[in-house]
Amino acid sequence: MAECNGNIKDVLTSDFARRIYAQVRDLPIIDYHCHLSPKEIFEDKPFENIGQMWLAGDHYKWRLMRACGIDEEYITGDKSWKEKYLAFCDAVSRSPGNPIWDWTAMELEKFFGVTKLFVPENAEEIWNICNKKIAEEKFSPRKAIAMSNVEYIATTDDPCDDLKYHKLLKEEGYGVKVAPSFRTDNIVNVGAPNYADYVKKLGAAAGVEINGYYDFLQAIKNRLDFFCSMGCKFSDVGVEGFPSFTNLEKEFECEPTPPPTRRERAEYVFGRILKDDIVYEEDEDVLREDLYVFLAAEYAERDMVMQLHLCVTRNSNYEMLDKCGRDAGFDCVGENITISSLRQFLNEATCDGEPYTIIYSLNPTLYYELITLCGAFRNVVPGISWWFNDHRRGITELLNAAAELSSIDSLVGMLTDSRSFMSYPRHDYFRKILCEFLANVTPEAAEKYAVRAARDLCYNNAKELVEESR
Amino acid sequence: MAECNGNIKDVLTSDFARRIYAQVRDLPIIDYHCHLSPKEIFEDKPFENIGQMWLAGDHYKWRLMRACGIDEEYITGDKSWKEKYLAFCDAVSRSPGNPIWDWTAMELEKFFGVTKLFVPENAEEIWNICNKKIAEEKFSPRKAIAMSNVEYIATTDDPCDDLKYHKLLKEEGYGVKVAPSFRTDNIVNVGAPNYADYVKKLGAAAGVEINGYYDFLQAIKNRLDFFCSMGCKFSDVGVEGFPSFTNLEKEFECEPTPPPTRRERAEYVFGRILKDDIVYEEDEDVLREDLYVFLAAEYAERDMVMQLHLCVTRNSNYEMLDKCGRDAGFDCVGENITISSLRQFLNEATCDGEPYTIIYSLNPTLYYELITLCGAFRNVVPGISWWFNDHRRGITELLNAAAELSSIDSLVGMLTDSRSFMSYPRHDYFRKILCEFLANVTPEAAEKYAVRAARDLCYNNAKELVEESR
Amino acid sequence: MAECNGNIKDVLTSDFARRIYAQVRDLPIIDYHCHLSPKEIFEDKPFENIGQMWLAGDHYKWRLMRACGIDEEYITGDKSWKEKYLAFCDAVSRSPGNPIWDWTAMELEKFFGVTKLFVPENAEEIWNICNKKIAEEKFSPRKAIAMSNVEYIATTDDPCDDLKYHKLLKEEGYGVKVAPSFRTDNIVNVGAPNYADYVKKLGAAAGVEINGYYDFLQAIKNRLDFFCSMGCKFSDVGVEGFPSFTNLEKEFECEPTPPPTRRERAEYVFGRILKDDIVYEEDEDVLREDLYVFLAAEYAERDMVMQLHLCVTRNSNYEMLDKCGRDAGFDCVGENITISSLRQFLNEATCDGEPYTIIYSLNPTLYYELITLCGAFRNVVPGISWWFNDHRRGITELLNAAAELSSIDSLVGMLTDSRSFMSYPRHDYFRKILCEFLANVTPEAAEKYAVRAARDLCYNNAKELVEESR
Repeated sequence: MAECNGNIKDVLTSDFARRIYAQVRDLPIIDYHCHLSPKEIFEDKPFENIGQMWLAGDHYKWRLMRACGIDEEYITGDKSWKEKYLAFCDAVSRSPGNPIWDWTAMELEKFFGVTKLFVPENAEEIWNICNKKIAEEKFSPRKAIAMSNVEYIATTDDPCDDLKYHKLLKEEGYGVKVAPSFRTDNIVNVGAPNYADYVKKLGAAAGVEINGYYDFLQAIKNRLDFFCSMGCKFSDVGVEGFPSFTNLEKEFECEPTPPPTRRERAEYVFGRILKDDIVYEEDEDVLREDLYVFLAAEYAERDMVMQLHLCVTRNSNYEMLDKCGRDAGFDCVGENITISSLRQFLNEATCDGEPYTIIYSLNPTLYYELITLCGAFRNVVPGISWWFNDHRRGITELLNAAAELSSIDSLVGMLTDSRSFMSYPRHDYFRKILCEFLANVTPEAAEKYAVRAARDLCYNNAKELVEESR
Repeated sequence: MAECNGNIKDVLTSDFARRIYAQVRDLPIIDYHCHLSPKEIFEDKPFENIGQMWLAGDHYKWRLMRACGIDEEYITGDKSWKEKYLAFCDAVSRSPGNPIWDWTAMELEKFFGVTKLFVPENAEEIWNICNKKIAEEKFSPRKAIAMSNVEYIATTDDPCDDLKYHKLLKEEGYGVKVAPSFRTDNIVNVGAPNYADYVKKLGAAAGVEINGYYDFLQAIKNRLDFFCSMGCKFSDVGVEGFPSFTNLEKEFECEPTPPPTRRERAEYVFGRILKDDIVYEEDEDVLREDLYVFLAAEYAERDMVMQLHLCVTRNSNYEMLDKCGRDAGFDCVGENITISSLRQFLNEATCDGEPYTIIYSLNPTLYYELITLCGAFRNVVPGISWWFNDHRRGITELLNAAAELSSIDSLVGMLTDSRSFMSYPRHDYFRKILCEFLANVTPEAAEKYAVRAARDLCYNNAKELVEESR
Repeated sequence: MAECNGNIKDVLTSDFARRIYAQVRDLPIIDYHCHLSPKEIFEDKPFENIGQMWLAGDHYKWRLMRACGIDEEYITGDKSWKEKYLAFCDAVSRSPGNPIWDWTAMELEKFFGVTKLFVPENAEEIWNICNKKIAEEKFSPRKAIAMSNVEYIATTDDPCDDLKYHKLLKEEGYGVKVAPSFRTDNIVNVGAPNYADYVKKLGAAAGVEINGYYDFLQAIKNRLDFFCSMGCKFSDVGVEGFPSFTNLEKEFECEPTPPPTRRERAEYVFGRILKDDIVYEEDEDVLREDLYVFLAAEYAERDMVMQLHLCVTRNSNYEMLDKCGRDAGFDCVGENITISSLRQFLNEATCDGEPYTIIYSLNPTLYYELITLCGAFRNVVPGISWWFNDHRRGITELLNAAAELSSIDSLVGMLTDSRSFMSYPRHDYFRKILCEFLANVTPEAAEKYAVRAARDLCYNNAKELVEESR
């Protein structure tokens, strides 16, 4: 990246890589999975300063500061934005090799034209330059989006959400398409303490009184229809664990008379939850299985994409969960899910090639199992490196594994998964890493095929999924 | 590989690597584990065309085509060989980084002298050149074997097989030694639906009427004797899962009176299977354990090599299994086996250094556990990268791990594991990757030791295992 | 390492890397975890010869020799040191890529000024040079320590140990601080056959008659106080497995009446063990859990560092355990522990940032889970690559993962974990690998921050942990 900033190491190391990159650099961004707030996009309030812009909600940065021993008051506490910003700069300077070096460098250059190294001796100067620009230009979410050449944003929304801001953005005629995604964590988190409350809330949103399981399924359908009417193309789920998908088999072994179907058992279990009766873990599992299969069928019917974000552990530090709440930097890479459970699910849910399915693993040790399993099903593809794997080595690892075990052209390509409007330069980072990778594995005589693969992963493959006509 | 083909990236990057390679390039090939058909070798029918030659049975290529979204009719369906060949070429061009780029390039050059890039704009020309040569020279399995300098082929055969074609090849005096291997999948697949039928079939082949477990063990011995009389040196097993090897311990804890031995329990379980009585999974496990230990002892007695192919998942897509049958590209990298089970087995089965044992893992995340476990037992060695790991990074990863954790010279070296007569250039590929690896880790002043290791892994170590006198 | 020895490949590949290295090369060594014998340091007997020095107790070397097929009589048997030395040299020459190449080269140069390649044709000459020097200079443990610029050594000691030699070294005023570490394997190995005997032995050492669990806990406290009075700063545990930390939850689900606390259950289980009653595995697990949590609290109270060495399998070959005893080269990389158990433990034991905790995994496939989990807790850090991972690729892998997922500056840095006085050059090896890594990930303009990180990991971070005032 020498061509853009002295802060970070070159990603593109050959003319061949640079030629491929030249063919993708200016493609628009399709951000088909992120956690940006539609409210913030709609309101478009200018940022206060570079400290608030960077540190108000970015748990990647908070983790780094904690790892450097910085007190919590500089992280989620009461210190001023300037103090937090300086503490952050100190943490970065102690952390060579962390992708935040590259990200901050790219963001400073992209949005503020700053190419100075983000290190303590430059911190004051960079603070002043950025804040001057923020104030003068009223730098805001939509300005960041516009500067990043973003064409499409799929936000992540609870099925109960009224999608008010999506509506307002539509009515206003905002030039970037902002579509909701149907995130089912709360639907499948059957064991959660307030599950019955959530069920009622969803019923209310759907205009359905929920007296039993079929009411609940109907309510989900209604919400899906509403989301689709608002342009929703993607679903997503990112809870811990995965249903075992062994219940039917077990049943079959044990019972001499015809056993109830999974749907019947799910209905029974759901009824107990509504009545606040004791429910065993394995019964919750049956209900979860049924919901996963039900949802997949509904996605297929609506030509929606099913996304699974696997191998995540949430809120690992209980004390800090109390203090800081969710999404505060205490999530971790989780254990690999049992791949045979996923195999069973794919057989039940996707065998006819629908719904189109993207499966992400936060644990890179699952890649070989996951990518070969995806390869056994049509329209089931591994998701790109994400979160803890969203860095040069992590992205390269996924690209390598996908290329070795499948066709790299089957990947959908980059997404930010971010809560920050500053994250769009990571698309450019991905593009460079991808082009460097392609240059390393493709003979130069096949340049046009390397370019085609690059353009597919940078734009075309995602574009195809978000087309109205899909 | 610039010296042989413009299609693929150089493997050998230094003069040192090229000097080591020069010392192994012309060594004969000992293919001590493959799935070539002895019938096809014996009959030696000329190939029809490059499409049929490449695509009639190669599930590696089928997977790639499916990953690129190509319709099944171009893969296992009714399209013509020419149409399939063109679709395959298109898939390859979409898949930079897939080892099939390298393999097709090597095969085109080795067998047809074609050094043109295998991409759509050259597809027609390559089709014509290859088919002309196939027709003119009646290009056939034996021609491919001869051009590849193969000295020894160990096929993979069911214990019921009459080895008719091995016999015919022997009688004919075919110059390449073609020996059978004793593949026990059907013997240990205790839970398979037709297991009792298989038992009877094996009894018939062995001339033993099977009324109980000891009859079955006798039948297996008879078949082993027969296989050995036909030159068999290797056994193999490649089923999903691995016995738990915890049953004896559990028994010991629970029972106050002397518990039955594993052999006694296995006898009981086997009896129930013969009578079609209900058998519990854990009882199947006992029987499987006993069979593994029994087989190991029989191999030791006959100086046979025991091969275990671990961490495989078969036929993951049930619908496609119905449509296309087994070995059609729906197998996957399986979960790591429980290493403590393997440890218990090796303690029971190999503690005196016999039988010589090669253990392959399809899941590379097991390498560190597996290689260090092998290092705790004499004559137990990790198997080379295979199948989904048979590419530049996969082979290098195994070499690195073996070198770091053990002595690289303990590896037996390359095998194709292939069903295709076209796969022999992969030995050359392996040799280059190995020599590049050795050049990267050895000081140049120790060149002769790098050369020795290279020659051992390319020929000597495998040769030692197939010697008559072993 | 071209600058020091022709034997091994350069680690430092750029001027930038060499500049960083120049700033750490001469820092003293803090060896905060090793298995050196305080008795041998105190007695300081000169070595007999290079064969005895290298091969008397180093199971790394024994494994390599076994992997090369060398007979046990040359390893742990009756052959002369010269014969063993020559066999070892042969094994090394067959093992390009094994870190023992680098280690022997560094040791030969550091301690004997030998820069010749350690290969069979030089073996005789090297034997003579080294032995001449050993004889002339009465080369001994303390000479090796002095030549290595070691400032601090933390040995590994059983809680029953009387620390006689630590006392003698202190009284003598030996210039290098030699402190004990509290190694609790025997305390937590609840299921071991002689556990009750060990409990009595610990009681005797602590001056406490052990009639129940609280006596045992008191005895442990007494021993901790004694160890701390002898300068102990570190605890350690390195047993197979890890408690499940699920017992309390399970209890809660099953019992309608208020269940006993874990402490109460542990007390009950401990009582049964003392009386030699049957104890179930899950009850042992409860006791183990309680001991882990108890010990962590005691470490916190004494400002001690808690070290956990995870994912190890011991004595995998039962026959060789009988013949050669423990620590003879039959240990292996173990399966990954269940990360949710570790999460539960850290929540119970360390939530307030005490004790400072270092967690090592012998299985590198756990790194991503482990490092992100550590990052969710203050003062919990991943331990450096060790044992089977103590080589160029293994160290680089850990550095990469720590840098990507956390701040590299949070690592404590290198330790030898060794039983050999010859191992100190591995610190220099680590320093080079670290500096090469830093040069590869840091922009040159940030050189001073790369240097700071290097100095922290080579000296400052460990120094801070061993300060008296901590």
